[in-house]
Amino acid sequence: MSQYAAQDIGQAVIDRMADAPNPRFKEVMTALIQHLHAFAQEVQLTPDEWMAGIQFLTDVAKMCDEKRQEFILLSDTLGLSMLVVAIQQARGAARYQPQPGESAPTEATVLGPFYWEGAPVLPAGANIAEGAPGEPAWYHGRVTDLGGKPVANAALDVWSGDAEGFYDLQKGPDAPMQLRARFHTDADGRYSFWSIKPTYYPVPDDGPVGRMLRGMGRHPNRPGHMHTMLHAKGHQPLITHLFDADSPYIDSDAVFGVRDSLIVKFGQHAPGTAPDGRVLAKTWYDCAYDFRLVPAA
Amino acid sequence: MSQYAAQDIGQAVIDRMADAPNPRFKEVMTALIQHLHAFAQEVQLTPDEWMAGIQFLTDVAKMCDEKRQEFILLSDTLGLSMLVVAIQQARGAARYQPQPGESAPTEATVLGPFYWEGAPVLPAGANIAEGAPGEPAWYHGRVTDLGGKPVANAALDVWSGDAEGFYDLQKGPDAPMQLRARFHTDADGRYSFWSIKPTYYPVPDDGPVGRMLRGMGRHPNRPGHMHTMLHAKGHQPLITHLFDADSPYIDSDAVFGVRDSLIVKFGQHAPGTAPDGRVLAKTWYDCAYDFRLVPAA
Repeated sequence: MSQYAAQDIGQAVIDRMADAPNPRFKEVMTALIQHLHAFAQEVQLTPDEWMAGIQFLTDVAKMCDEKRQEFILLSDTLGLSMLVVAIQQARGAARYQPQPGESAPTEATVLGPFYWEGAPVLPAGANIAEGAPGEPAWYHGRVTDLGGKPVANAALDVWSGDAEGFYDLQKGPDAPMQLRARFHTDADGRYSFWSIKPTYYPVPDDGPVGRMLRGMGRHPNRPGHMHTMLHAKGHQPLITHLFDADSPYIDSDAVFGVRDSLIVKFGQHAPGTAPDGRVLAKTWYDCAYDFRLVPAA
Repeated sequence: MSQYAAQDIGQAVIDRMADAPNPRFKEVMTALIQHLHAFAQEVQLTPDEWMAGIQFLTDVAKMCDEKRQEFILLSDTLGLSMLVVAIQQARGAARYQPQPGESAPTEATVLGPFYWEGAPVLPAGANIAEGAPGEPAWYHGRVTDLGGKPVANAALDVWSGDAEGFYDLQKGPDAPMQLRARFHTDADGRYSFWSIKPTYYPVPDDGPVGRMLRGMGRHPNRPGHMHTMLHAKGHQPLITHLFDADSPYIDSDAVFGVRDSLIVKFGQHAPGTAPDGRVLAKTWYDCAYDFRLVPAA
């Protein structure tokens, strides 16, 4: 049978997978093909629109290099990345029900495109802003399990953009690492470090995803946030952000990553001596947040 | 409202398009986002699978250059290209109902990734196989309107792979054009040219789309076909193929492009003199096909 009506082509593609060796791959591809064909049929996609889609994907590809992943940015801005995070979180929650007296785990959010492996390991209390412009902020708190017991020697990766909203990765091929580091919690689960109060910034919008956002009538901005990633023995890894409650765009994150439980009201402090002994000549902030990790499966 | 449950994220993305300037873009993106999110939810897409998808698209991108368009190949092998052709054809049919006594127009099929603009314009009867290996075949027929009236001076572009199934575009960056040309119909709407009897061949399967096909348990082959594209004043353009009825894979084209009305039984002829006077020392074939074009809107 060579002849397919438009509405039968998708099923013909699916039928062609009768011998697919991996059942999960077959399941995912079946759903993908069904939705791809239903989409094209629903909107009666024209050849010109199809070609615009091909060209768009090709343009997305051209923006990708070692330091820029426009496909992830596309996924982020279409809410798909956050959906995958939410699905994964629900999966974890289904596997582990907190015991009486335990608290809910810290919520996850998107990794984003600016994680850079191999950041320096620094001692607690270090300042990773290294003279970069921005309002000084002291990040501090504990990493615990769901029952509140400290998690010692947890690795806490942190990274953010600078006061203008730019990450080191965006500053040219030879730019060094900046505003990122790895810390480890002490025996009491405590962490602390200095950086800047994160500012809102646009996701890179000089490429095809930026064009898409303008076509959608959307702004490209993310509210100010500090990226964090936690790894600790005996616990599930956690990738999340801490969001500045006072940041513009806190209600309209371009990548839909905000969760209420991750919004932190930064404390504002007059110039003077911070609790860790650092003396500041200008207004500084503090961000207090305790992370709660889920036990490993 | 910052907090979205998994099932609400897609709608949040759609709501963010309230100010989209182009209603059609908004319509297409709304359907795309709905299906993308429904897909991820239905299969409960995992972070690893999501990353595999990102990596796959990135790999598809890396295969693209001036002469290879792996995104089109992806669309072709998922049946999307043929669906768009079928939708477009239905749209044309809805615009033009043949009058009593008129025949249905020639059906369209996919353009494919191997069209190369600027092929030489050759006189009727020319041999475009130019000594390339393969079984000689004489293509001949007429181009008419739906009522059977000849369409004179119609431009007929033709292209195919060689006897091993390779197109010129696949033979390295400096390979010259081969097995492609443009002809024009005479006052009686007639065309004719010599080429080879097309052979089945695999779509390029040394890249990520090939990996996908193997994962799907599918072969990569297309039945033998001659690509044709017609442009004529006062008529809608037509992109189609002529398929060899005796070719392997005629029932399982890797890109779902076969239509029953495009399958031609090639005539087989003993060595000797062809109707146009060419003397052949080996068995030769002929492919007789009349194209019927739809009037321009």
